[in-house]
Amino acid sequence: MEKTLAQLAQHVGGKVKGNAETKITAVATLENATATDISFLSNPKYTNALQTTKAGAVIVGKDTDAPVPLLIAEDPYYALSQIVILLYGHRKHKKIGLSQKASIAKTAKIGKNCDIHDFATICDNAVIGDNTIIYPGGFVGPDVTIGKNCILYPNAVIYDGSRLGDNVIINSNAVIGKDGYGYATHKGKHYKTPQIGIAVIEDDVEIGSNCCIQCGAIENTVIGQGSKLGDLINVGHGAKIGPHCLLVSQIGIAGSTTIGHHCVIAAQAGIVGHIKIGNCVKIGAQAGVINDIPDNQDIFGAPAIDAAKARRAYAMIEDLPEIRKSIRRLEKQRKDEE
Amino acid sequence: MEKTLAQLAQHVGGKVKGNAETKITAVATLENATATDISFLSNPKYTNALQTTKAGAVIVGKDTDAPVPLLIAEDPYYALSQIVILLYGHRKHKKIGLSQKASIAKTAKIGKNCDIHDFATICDNAVIGDNTIIYPGGFVGPDVTIGKNCILYPNAVIYDGSRLGDNVIINSNAVIGKDGYGYATHKGKHYKTPQIGIAVIEDDVEIGSNCCIQCGAIENTVIGQGSKLGDLINVGHGAKIGPHCLLVSQIGIAGSTTIGHHCVIAAQAGIVGHIKIGNCVKIGAQAGVINDIPDNQDIFGAPAIDAAKARRAYAMIEDLPEIRKSIRRLEKQRKDEE
Amino acid sequence: MEKTLAQLAQHVGGKVKGNAETKITAVATLENATATDISFLSNPKYTNALQTTKAGAVIVGKDTDAPVPLLIAEDPYYALSQIVILLYGHRKHKKIGLSQKASIAKTAKIGKNCDIHDFATICDNAVIGDNTIIYPGGFVGPDVTIGKNCILYPNAVIYDGSRLGDNVIINSNAVIGKDGYGYATHKGKHYKTPQIGIAVIEDDVEIGSNCCIQCGAIENTVIGQGSKLGDLINVGHGAKIGPHCLLVSQIGIAGSTTIGHHCVIAAQAGIVGHIKIGNCVKIGAQAGVINDIPDNQDIFGAPAIDAAKARRAYAMIEDLPEIRKSIRRLEKQRKDEE
Repeated sequence: MEKTLAQLAQHVGGKVKGNAETKITAVATLENATATDISFLSNPKYTNALQTTKAGAVIVGKDTDAPVPLLIAEDPYYALSQIVILLYGHRKHKKIGLSQKASIAKTAKIGKNCDIHDFATICDNAVIGDNTIIYPGGFVGPDVTIGKNCILYPNAVIYDGSRLGDNVIINSNAVIGKDGYGYATHKGKHYKTPQIGIAVIEDDVEIGSNCCIQCGAIENTVIGQGSKLGDLINVGHGAKIGPHCLLVSQIGIAGSTTIGHHCVIAAQAGIVGHIKIGNCVKIGAQAGVINDIPDNQDIFGAPAIDAAKARRAYAMIEDLPEIRKSIRRLEKQRKDEE
Repeated sequence: MEKTLAQLAQHVGGKVKGNAETKITAVATLENATATDISFLSNPKYTNALQTTKAGAVIVGKDTDAPVPLLIAEDPYYALSQIVILLYGHRKHKKIGLSQKASIAKTAKIGKNCDIHDFATICDNAVIGDNTIIYPGGFVGPDVTIGKNCILYPNAVIYDGSRLGDNVIINSNAVIGKDGYGYATHKGKHYKTPQIGIAVIEDDVEIGSNCCIQCGAIENTVIGQGSKLGDLINVGHGAKIGPHCLLVSQIGIAGSTTIGHHCVIAAQAGIVGHIKIGNCVKIGAQAGVINDIPDNQDIFGAPAIDAAKARRAYAMIEDLPEIRKSIRRLEKQRKDEE
Repeated sequence: MEKTLAQLAQHVGGKVKGNAETKITAVATLENATATDISFLSNPKYTNALQTTKAGAVIVGKDTDAPVPLLIAEDPYYALSQIVILLYGHRKHKKIGLSQKASIAKTAKIGKNCDIHDFATICDNAVIGDNTIIYPGGFVGPDVTIGKNCILYPNAVIYDGSRLGDNVIINSNAVIGKDGYGYATHKGKHYKTPQIGIAVIEDDVEIGSNCCIQCGAIENTVIGQGSKLGDLINVGHGAKIGPHCLLVSQIGIAGSTTIGHHCVIAAQAGIVGHIKIGNCVKIGAQAGVINDIPDNQDIFGAPAIDAAKARRAYAMIEDLPEIRKSIRRLEKQRKDEE
């Protein structure tokens, strides 16, 4: 597909500076772009590359001097995203209907226009909405409800009773609704407690590969509308993540913790159970969160503290040998005087 | 199912305080319970909720004043577990026998009353005990032995030669017995060393989703009887975890490390290879364990130290800027005097 | 198989000290070896065991006094690896050809001598080289290219367009090429950005179980030739790992970061996005790497610093209560004097 820079600017509601008739067919990085590529500058770290790029045009957030045509957009990363969608589109899914090699229970209800691939399993009383795609090896357990326009990538597993909303994407080898980690220890043995809550994945959620969302021990586990989970994330039984959160990857959220809306949690962070994280909270990579966090806080470190404070404090761990040396010197000086 | 409070108390060996004829049909949290629900108080943090709950009854550990009928049990969490089992039961598994759509090698030996689902694979010389269930996509490699009453959830994979005891549960997308991380580096290249030990999963073990238990390099990897592993845990080649341990989730245990019995390891902890963890050791979340740990220790932090000490010490990292300021002030005062 | 110690020494280019006719049939640890086993000493921690082992022979790095025949090899771990291969061989794979129960698209090109197992899926336009094995549940997406002599273990998933070289091993439940974590946030909602780069896995790479290698956002994600990844590792979109790296397990590498050749990254380390790690860098377990790292550095800690410095500094966190006490005492002494 070929678009002029003017067409792209119109598409994203931006302005052109320079040759509006520049023809664009693809997207590339500033470093590797050629004359028919559009590139973008969202990270100020790369501003210098604007002077040397061979791109046909560059998406920027504000007017600047550069020897290349610019597409000035209020939100350059969002403009880029819209242009990528325009030029490339989302992944195409082959229409295959209901495969004869799938295993679909007679009691399951499958919506219109669904694709159920070979080796997918749809169990008793499962309900699947229109246009939903279940790739090979996908497993939809008994009594599961899945909404419209969902995608289960290969080998994704949905345990019995889970509920998925519309437009949900579950990536390969993710597991939704397996039993929570619930054992009652009695006289040195651990007895499995049935987990009677379910896992609820609301509309517009994407779950990354190899994530594991446990079902609820008593109350449901909930991933709120529009939240996006990266890969290898573990959400414990009864945890509730609010809408529009971003959880990057390898994060652990223990049971019964609640997280507000629009939180951003960076990779490898861990959050203990039974606490309350407010709205719009930012949690840094590898943070260890052990207390309630009010709205709008920005924290990191293990234990996690205010981010500004943490940036200074954790960087000073490396000064500990010097700190102790100073103290010993002071103590010695004092002792020498006595 | 409906039970009176008296019946429940008898079932768990507890005592009733209040109306023993209260009818109970379900379990709910203190906050959300209604008149036919039984709730429980195990975390003292929620004691106040006892005064306001609308539950029909509450399980408690000791007699207390509350405007709600009580079921007093020595071990309230264990009593709760027994009541959940009584009222709800464990997950029901549909009897399907040996599916025609499964792939079962002629040389495999399948016990009585097993369920081998569509798209499950049982390879040559595998032996599967009575009443064991292999869900769709489950893979039982060559020469694998699985005991009685086991469950492999969808897409669980057991590599060749692994041995599973009785009553073992392997959750979806977990992998047992894949090759240990063993390469011999020679002149800048890494050569794969065949891993000749196997993975042994003893009786009554549960392995969470997306765990990976490596086989042994030379000696076997062992998960001891009754131990329970949460999700996304990695156990390295030749590690030996003793009986009745609890490993919460996202834990990494490197090769050849041995862990005693009744240890509790919290989420995201990491344990280096070739060390010895004693019995009844508690390891905190995100701990980094680099040395042998004697019996009965309670440790956390990275590096992990005695927990009481760690609670104080790690919390003081945030004071480092203040600590350095104090030192500089003291140094300046001394310099001014000179 | 039985070999004399002389034959083994010749095989690995080493020397015998003691009875060269000792018959060896197996490999075992120093502790558990018996008269027909060969053992090895690579970790100096176990040197004492050389005096008491019942092994028939022991592989060592240099001549030493011991009451057991020795096989002296320059690189004892590599010699061990060669002997394990000689005595045991690598895993054997049953020849099954193209299973009738697999799902192979007509447009897919399958090389000679491949094994495509039951319930494996090969999608449109996939190209698979000679001698490659796809185990049950393996999914090879549309337009994927896989080289010669590769193994996809059960339930491994390769998303559309990914490219795998020759001799690549993908372990069970690993996922290659799923969408990168790319969302454009606009007015509080997160919009999925199509990820237009692919995942490239070069020759001789092994990927552990439950790893997730994202495809590129714009530029490709690359795992360099001969690199070996353990289990549960996440590689973000557009990250480039150089050749011959060792990544142990549970590591997270964020998007667009580049890593040189021959780096060694220990378990649970995390590396932020958009940085550059040089060649031959060593990164310790649980490290948090947030800055560019030059060649040949050895770092650990979170934040990661020079390893020698880190070993001292991080170990001093436990002294913080004592440090603060000392400061308070000094301050009090000073105050008392005023």
